[in-house]
Amino acid sequence: MDLGRLSLNQITTERLSLSEAVAACQRHSIGHIGVWRHKLGGKEILRDSGLSVSSLCRGGMFPALTVTERQACIDDNLRAIDEAVSIGAPTLVLVCGPAADRDISAARGMVAVGIAAIAGHARAAGVKLGIEPLHPMFAADRSVITTLAEANALAMQFDAAAVGIVIDAFHVWWDPDLYAGIARAKGRITGFHVSDWLVPLPDVLLGRGMMGDGVIELRRIREAVDAAGYHGPVEVEIFNRAIWDSDPDSVLTTMRERFDALL
Amino acid sequence: MDLGRLSLNQITTERLSLSEAVAACQRHSIGHIGVWRHKLGGKEILRDSGLSVSSLCRGGMFPALTVTERQACIDDNLRAIDEAVSIGAPTLVLVCGPAADRDISAARGMVAVGIAAIAGHARAAGVKLGIEPLHPMFAADRSVITTLAEANALAMQFDAAAVGIVIDAFHVWWDPDLYAGIARAKGRITGFHVSDWLVPLPDVLLGRGMMGDGVIELRRIREAVDAAGYHGPVEVEIFNRAIWDSDPDSVLTTMRERFDALL
Repeated sequence: MDLGRLSLNQITTERLSLSEAVAACQRHSIGHIGVWRHKLGGKEILRDSGLSVSSLCRGGMFPALTVTERQACIDDNLRAIDEAVSIGAPTLVLVCGPAADRDISAARGMVAVGIAAIAGHARAAGVKLGIEPLHPMFAADRSVITTLAEANALAMQFDAAAVGIVIDAFHVWWDPDLYAGIARAKGRITGFHVSDWLVPLPDVLLGRGMMGDGVIELRRIREAVDAAGYHGPVEVEIFNRAIWDSDPDSVLTTMRERFDALL
Repeated sequence: MDLGRLSLNQITTERLSLSEAVAACQRHSIGHIGVWRHKLGGKEILRDSGLSVSSLCRGGMFPALTVTERQACIDDNLRAIDEAVSIGAPTLVLVCGPAADRDISAARGMVAVGIAAIAGHARAAGVKLGIEPLHPMFAADRSVITTLAEANALAMQFDAAAVGIVIDAFHVWWDPDLYAGIARAKGRITGFHVSDWLVPLPDVLLGRGMMGDGVIELRRIREAVDAAGYHGPVEVEIFNRAIWDSDPDSVLTTMRERFDALL
């Protein structure tokens, strides 16, 4: 695919500081970067870097046992929106959070209430909230929103100018309703992430693979996302200890080649 | 719940031989046992044990790259049906298999074709094929059938006397459409398995927990399965290295207590 759409999600080079990651993008002619809130130190460098920021990770984590805790989450999300503005990120990725107890249905309701509480500020700030359905293996510790169908139904309760969908191939590739879900998200997609699913899966959290090393039909999914009207940056987001321990320049070289050949 | 419905799935006491597992059930007044094909040595012992066999695990694994390989899978499934008859198992659990390449849609078609090829023999033999949707984290290496919705749609292509559904709480608890799916499976449910989802998940394959140690709403799911007309044995199926390494009598004591209190 067009290398002009390639974005480095900062987590792929987890050991680099933001300024080191920016420099690596410049060396490898990568025009976009997705950044994480906990790695925003020295964010001023982004301004004159020539890079566009594709997204800020992450808001969300809405469910909690008490009203006080839920309000604290909402306040933190409002700050995250302001941080997105401060770095020119068009999208704040929402990882919606796990249930605080065993009641997953109630937690899903808390997610909807949480998004409702921040959607107005997002809209006013010009930042889109991107609901990212996570793989069901993260339902207990990261996100009760696990399918594109559910993310779509949730997003459609809100103004499309404020709430969209982020699709990560690693999280949704297995879904029998994947292509129907992508089509239904038309006009709402505000981010697309890629990596690969290794067989066997080396680790629940840190077992994602470089594109081409696993079983995901990346091109088919990318074409469906294109057909649903998303033409923005495509973030390569790889949580993988072995890749984190590798030389970042060699990781970025491989990432460019695979992106070019397989997406 | 009624302890009369408790069934020991043999994998929960993975280190015991079949005769040792049967003796353990007798010591603990457990009336049912679910058995595995690779652990059927000395199966004659089942006949006079006083135990009922709740199911035989497993048939399935239908997708393959060549017609020859797919036919070999079908032949193996026909043998599995005969093995189920030989031990009085009313149900053969189907773990449908992964794609042989990246084409998960084609693999799903091969599963349907495979079931069609064995359904007549199952019906004639009086054995029900139980399609078990597996957790999406197993989509790449064990089963392209990952949701109850998909398993239901597949099963409904066939005679209910030949093809049913096995629901394992570990595999489906996260699903936003879980309760709708259970209701839709009414009259088709031919097995119900329980364990728990630990947080964090210790291991993809060997990380299942004893009931009560995780986050699954077991009673709510059990009541929904009851309401959908299933009143047969409930298998406790726990893949967990630490439990396998524990004293089997202490595992069965805990299993009975938790089943009684939480299901």
